[in-house]
Amino acid sequence: MTIAETSTDNRAQFDAALHRADLVAAELRATAAERDRANRPPLAEIELLREADLLQVGEPAEYGGSGLSYAQSQQITRRIARGDTSIAHLLGYHYAQQRIPHLFGTPEQAEEQSRRNAQYKPFWGGVQNPRGASGLVLTRDGSGFRLDGRRTFASGAGVADQLSVTATLDGDLVFLSIPTRREGFTALGDWDNIGQRLTDSGGVVFDGARIERHEILGDDPLTGRVPDAFQTLITPHWQLAFVNFYIGTAEGALEEALDWTRLNASAWETSGLESATDDPYILELVGQLRSEVTAAALLADRAGYALQRALDIGHDLTAEQRAETAVAIAEAKYVTTKVSLDVASRLFEIQGARATTTAYGFDRHWRNLRTHTVHDPVAYKAREVGDWTLNRRAPQFTLYS
Amino acid sequence: MTIAETSTDNRAQFDAALHRADLVAAELRATAAERDRANRPPLAEIELLREADLLQVGEPAEYGGSGLSYAQSQQITRRIARGDTSIAHLLGYHYAQQRIPHLFGTPEQAEEQSRRNAQYKPFWGGVQNPRGASGLVLTRDGSGFRLDGRRTFASGAGVADQLSVTATLDGDLVFLSIPTRREGFTALGDWDNIGQRLTDSGGVVFDGARIERHEILGDDPLTGRVPDAFQTLITPHWQLAFVNFYIGTAEGALEEALDWTRLNASAWETSGLESATDDPYILELVGQLRSEVTAAALLADRAGYALQRALDIGHDLTAEQRAETAVAIAEAKYVTTKVSLDVASRLFEIQGARATTTAYGFDRHWRNLRTHTVHDPVAYKAREVGDWTLNRRAPQFTLYS
Amino acid sequence: MTIAETSTDNRAQFDAALHRADLVAAELRATAAERDRANRPPLAEIELLREADLLQVGEPAEYGGSGLSYAQSQQITRRIARGDTSIAHLLGYHYAQQRIPHLFGTPEQAEEQSRRNAQYKPFWGGVQNPRGASGLVLTRDGSGFRLDGRRTFASGAGVADQLSVTATLDGDLVFLSIPTRREGFTALGDWDNIGQRLTDSGGVVFDGARIERHEILGDDPLTGRVPDAFQTLITPHWQLAFVNFYIGTAEGALEEALDWTRLNASAWETSGLESATDDPYILELVGQLRSEVTAAALLADRAGYALQRALDIGHDLTAEQRAETAVAIAEAKYVTTKVSLDVASRLFEIQGARATTTAYGFDRHWRNLRTHTVHDPVAYKAREVGDWTLNRRAPQFTLYS
Amino acid sequence: MTIAETSTDNRAQFDAALHRADLVAAELRATAAERDRANRPPLAEIELLREADLLQVGEPAEYGGSGLSYAQSQQITRRIARGDTSIAHLLGYHYAQQRIPHLFGTPEQAEEQSRRNAQYKPFWGGVQNPRGASGLVLTRDGSGFRLDGRRTFASGAGVADQLSVTATLDGDLVFLSIPTRREGFTALGDWDNIGQRLTDSGGVVFDGARIERHEILGDDPLTGRVPDAFQTLITPHWQLAFVNFYIGTAEGALEEALDWTRLNASAWETSGLESATDDPYILELVGQLRSEVTAAALLADRAGYALQRALDIGHDLTAEQRAETAVAIAEAKYVTTKVSLDVASRLFEIQGARATTTAYGFDRHWRNLRTHTVHDPVAYKAREVGDWTLNRRAPQFTLYS
Repeated sequence: MTIAETSTDNRAQFDAALHRADLVAAELRATAAERDRANRPPLAEIELLREADLLQVGEPAEYGGSGLSYAQSQQITRRIARGDTSIAHLLGYHYAQQRIPHLFGTPEQAEEQSRRNAQYKPFWGGVQNPRGASGLVLTRDGSGFRLDGRRTFASGAGVADQLSVTATLDGDLVFLSIPTRREGFTALGDWDNIGQRLTDSGGVVFDGARIERHEILGDDPLTGRVPDAFQTLITPHWQLAFVNFYIGTAEGALEEALDWTRLNASAWETSGLESATDDPYILELVGQLRSEVTAAALLADRAGYALQRALDIGHDLTAEQRAETAVAIAEAKYVTTKVSLDVASRLFEIQGARATTTAYGFDRHWRNLRTHTVHDPVAYKAREVGDWTLNRRAPQFTLYS
Repeated sequence: MTIAETSTDNRAQFDAALHRADLVAAELRATAAERDRANRPPLAEIELLREADLLQVGEPAEYGGSGLSYAQSQQITRRIARGDTSIAHLLGYHYAQQRIPHLFGTPEQAEEQSRRNAQYKPFWGGVQNPRGASGLVLTRDGSGFRLDGRRTFASGAGVADQLSVTATLDGDLVFLSIPTRREGFTALGDWDNIGQRLTDSGGVVFDGARIERHEILGDDPLTGRVPDAFQTLITPHWQLAFVNFYIGTAEGALEEALDWTRLNASAWETSGLESATDDPYILELVGQLRSEVTAAALLADRAGYALQRALDIGHDLTAEQRAETAVAIAEAKYVTTKVSLDVASRLFEIQGARATTTAYGFDRHWRNLRTHTVHDPVAYKAREVGDWTLNRRAPQFTLYS
Repeated sequence: MTIAETSTDNRAQFDAALHRADLVAAELRATAAERDRANRPPLAEIELLREADLLQVGEPAEYGGSGLSYAQSQQITRRIARGDTSIAHLLGYHYAQQRIPHLFGTPEQAEEQSRRNAQYKPFWGGVQNPRGASGLVLTRDGSGFRLDGRRTFASGAGVADQLSVTATLDGDLVFLSIPTRREGFTALGDWDNIGQRLTDSGGVVFDGARIERHEILGDDPLTGRVPDAFQTLITPHWQLAFVNFYIGTAEGALEEALDWTRLNASAWETSGLESATDDPYILELVGQLRSEVTAAALLADRAGYALQRALDIGHDLTAEQRAETAVAIAEAKYVTTKVSLDVASRLFEIQGARATTTAYGFDRHWRNLRTHTVHDPVAYKAREVGDWTLNRRAPQFTLYS
Repeated sequence: MTIAETSTDNRAQFDAALHRADLVAAELRATAAERDRANRPPLAEIELLREADLLQVGEPAEYGGSGLSYAQSQQITRRIARGDTSIAHLLGYHYAQQRIPHLFGTPEQAEEQSRRNAQYKPFWGGVQNPRGASGLVLTRDGSGFRLDGRRTFASGAGVADQLSVTATLDGDLVFLSIPTRREGFTALGDWDNIGQRLTDSGGVVFDGARIERHEILGDDPLTGRVPDAFQTLITPHWQLAFVNFYIGTAEGALEEALDWTRLNASAWETSGLESATDDPYILELVGQLRSEVTAAALLADRAGYALQRALDIGHDLTAEQRAETAVAIAEAKYVTTKVSLDVASRLFEIQGARATTTAYGFDRHWRNLRTHTVHDPVAYKAREVGDWTLNRRAPQFTLYS
């Protein structure tokens, strides 16, 4: 199913990008278990994405990109997740960061970034996670500004070329776009978690880092302003990325488990069967998981359509349209979370005991999903859907909703 | 979302039919609880469908129909199910029965039936359910044939104008199309079940009923033949109807429960809240059910696309394409069964104790779904999906798969 | 498993009462579907309980009772629920109402009631449900009092001999014990709900009903007082009754479904099996439900032990001990609710389509459970367990917790 | 709740052993995450069990044991699992292996082993897992026998002092008890799995190992014989161990998660709350998991009673009694599997994102449970329960049932 009515040219570009993504995903899957254990900074993986021309797909074709819509780009994320959830996470966030100048920047800033993205294919990291004791504070300093503070969970910041940073200036939220080679910036490299191990999601420190005016997105950030409904689509950008790498992981994990089962599984001793692939309980479970994954993937597609439609409206987007968009993504977040965790845990019931060998690394799927699905509590996503459905109360804009 | 790429004219016809269906559904919902209790033959309801021009939507516009595809017609079924599951069941089967001459009949037979369907708007019942001790047997009798035997679960046969009948002739499956006013045919009117009470799904008896040659579908039914892949799409026709009236029921039941909740529910005593509509557990549950229903509905849409694509191929349909179609519907059957039953049971947790008053009849949703979802065991549908996914073994053609 | 360490004599009395209960349950089951449809006041059923000497089992043997503990009496409730959930509901509440004089009354009042219960075997109804616009207000009136107000959901009040009533006097909660033949008292007989149809749980009106001082439980109810921890066990009494008739219903429904299956079910067409009782999915489902029911029943047993231990402590009961008791029952409430609803809905998947015939009435189990399990929201019970487990915050005393 | 009616002396011994187990569990928990990562042979852990006098609890007090019943000993397993599932697995199997001479040996062999177990506190490993291409074959060799073959999944065989081995002699199953220091025996040390990492469950090879007649259990193993019902309790011994270390793991994991939550969790940003411990969804989830764990633990207790009752009957055990025992354990297996996996996965939803830090190692619970719960497919356990419940067909004796 395509993401939207598209031109023939866009369709061709999209298909080509999906194909490149599939090849990269296959390559990543072959080594995913091993790289998960090795736990090294994902430099080679980012290089692989760059070489496959997957970093600039969202930029206009005339600049050297593939001209894909944001929703289309997140289908690439999903494909990559079939091979490696960590790398899909990095790519999904990267696509989202690339859109921030288009939401908060001036047209000139947005265009400049698009050109640079298309030409130099920088990898974008983000310093946005608002959780933690201290945030990032921007203060005026002579002709420019200085940035101070610490953040945790800054995905890809340590391996990125360019950073998208959220900070406060006089209490207002501002968005910065800066290169990572900047004095006063340190990535701590302290990410060591049970899943999403290759996402380099450690802490960062800014200690008096110099920020120029043009690196602050927007016309006049020096006076406080409330983001409009269109700009608050920033959060749905990230949430759509999550939805896609969750369901892509489930798709890949199931496929991988079935491949393994066809080759390796033995019929259960007391089943009286010749082959595990004839086992009634295995067949039923495969069918259940397959059906659930398909349904969840369709909901993720729908979430992508919804966001793309909202993006295509631009600054005229109404609060109600923003709410519908956020809720469509929240619905997909709830279902993909549930289904993907279920797949990742139950695939061992298809494969049987021998699949628990460390070398296969089949547990990484559950670890990856479990780690990221607590990024923000899914109960609150269900609540947002319920509050909109029952009361037409829109999800409040935060960096999580 | 549309069912398929359609012409402007088809789109307009489809939208108009959906609109008529919505009006009928609203009217049916207003009296559904009462009619469920009264348990009378659904004559007025069928008349309502006829008057709303919903019986002939699947026939060509030039004959007086709406020119909708089969998949589109089952979206009408879904809409009607939002108001009354029994009537949606009758309509969904009716649409399916109307297609049988197009699968098994000669072109002339098919066209003749289409013309009559469009012109006279007969309501079709079916005598197909193969379960039970004795089936229907057709035997040669002079210049014609005679039909004998009993069947159970013949939905709508007692109130129909025209019957689609499955029988055996010399051990082969044959399909008949006959009017219900036929000596030797009796509908027993013995349907009294806990759900789908208005579907008139009782038993029927044929006792030496005269059948003419032209009432037997097909060129040469007198020599045994194996149905081709295209013809075996007959079962997916029914199964797609089920999928649509399950999910339509869930959609309607949830909507109805929320309407009631907004007007009638009280905050739980110990919640410290003013209104039930602020209750965190109610909001979460509404969000969960809403999300699951949306996902299941998308899967039902996809099943419709799949069947329509297969139908559009015609007799060139391959066994593999038939398998993919049947599996797409089986996936939707598994998920819609699970989700719709869950909605029908849990909506009381949204509404609270007062919603259990008999007058509201909110239990009819669970009774309706529970009754029809055991029509054929959903575990076997999951198994079919699993067997195809894991082993590329196609579901065997039966009147259930 | 016995309910507690008991004397030989108590054990014999308990076994005899359980045996009588089993006989009554069998008799009730045989007509349960029919009586559910007829929906008449449960007078004959109460007479059956009385004749089987089940109304006075909780009173001392020396007065003519069976000397069973409260926890033991609720095992009788469970047994009766295997045959008829409505009647078990009435009996479970009856046992609870009989205990109220022992919590709130003077020793003389408690003893007097016990003697009368044992001798005359009155059936107790209750007017306690605090939900609804207006409550019951007791006011001084000459040498006595008058009672005014309306209540809904007064289980058994219309068919009872004696009433346990909760009212307010000067804003304080007081408990009354009065005969139902009392001028100014009317049972509205307006209970008509989808389940628990035979519980006579309609509304009641007190219109200037005369109340004597001795009918108000306790030494000095005229000065406001806070109930002590022991007295607040009143709510666990009711909740334990619920737990027992939920799980008893599940036990009976499963047993009934299996009996039916052995006699009536047919192997699924495409299963290739001779008998439904060999179907791998049916066997698995039976095993799953059986295991869940056993676990839930053990938790219900444990809840009974917990309450009995607390009762045996008496007025020295500490707030912490009260909390542990309430939480043990809440745990059982959560699990029995979930498991019993699941059994009641899924048993049709064991039996198949023919089990949906109205005459069997197998849907009554789900209707009964669904109706009562929204008496108070089970999410709040889970929350109470969580709050105690995580924070050692005790459930607040209300008529629901 | 005690395991059985016990003497005062037994009760004191049991309490003391439970207390020692709790201390060991606490010590193990403190280092469990670290040891899981280090993945060294569990020599120190076994020494800890030995020093805490936990290896000989099942032997008679007069020989130096604690005189605990087998069911009581598996409660020790459960306690240890609260600290470390791998070590509980080793201990649970150890207790089971110690019982094999009492099932299959002569009275003299059984007594001799008991004395040695009590005096020298050997740790028992097992070579029993029947899966895999080749089994172990015993052949006559001069005055004795020789043992040849390979086995996988031989828990603890590499670190044990004594081995319980299942082999075939002339096609019949025989049980051997031999020291691990035996020429021709090699433990491959090739266990490297995603969970139960410290169980040393690798492969073993016997290559012409010399076996003496007295090391073969039983009177006359040289003539083929069918084990009697009592002897087939060997499998329930193992299965009861599984049940106990599953539920013990869930208990420990939940306790650990709650401890962490009280200290470390933060309120969710958009919840408007001060503390995570007030979050309605966290409280509900804690309550749900707590309730499910309690129910599952009761079912595990019941399974222990059942096996102990059967053991106390001895060789007079009937086939029906054996079936009831096996089914009681299968019920517990089904529920503890489901509940413990659910707890191990969902505890992160209580704790939130920071709990995914590798150093905490909270994922080990899911990895441990996921690894062992596919030892044998739980669907077949549910089926066994169903087949007994519906058809009174007893589980067939195998080394899995």
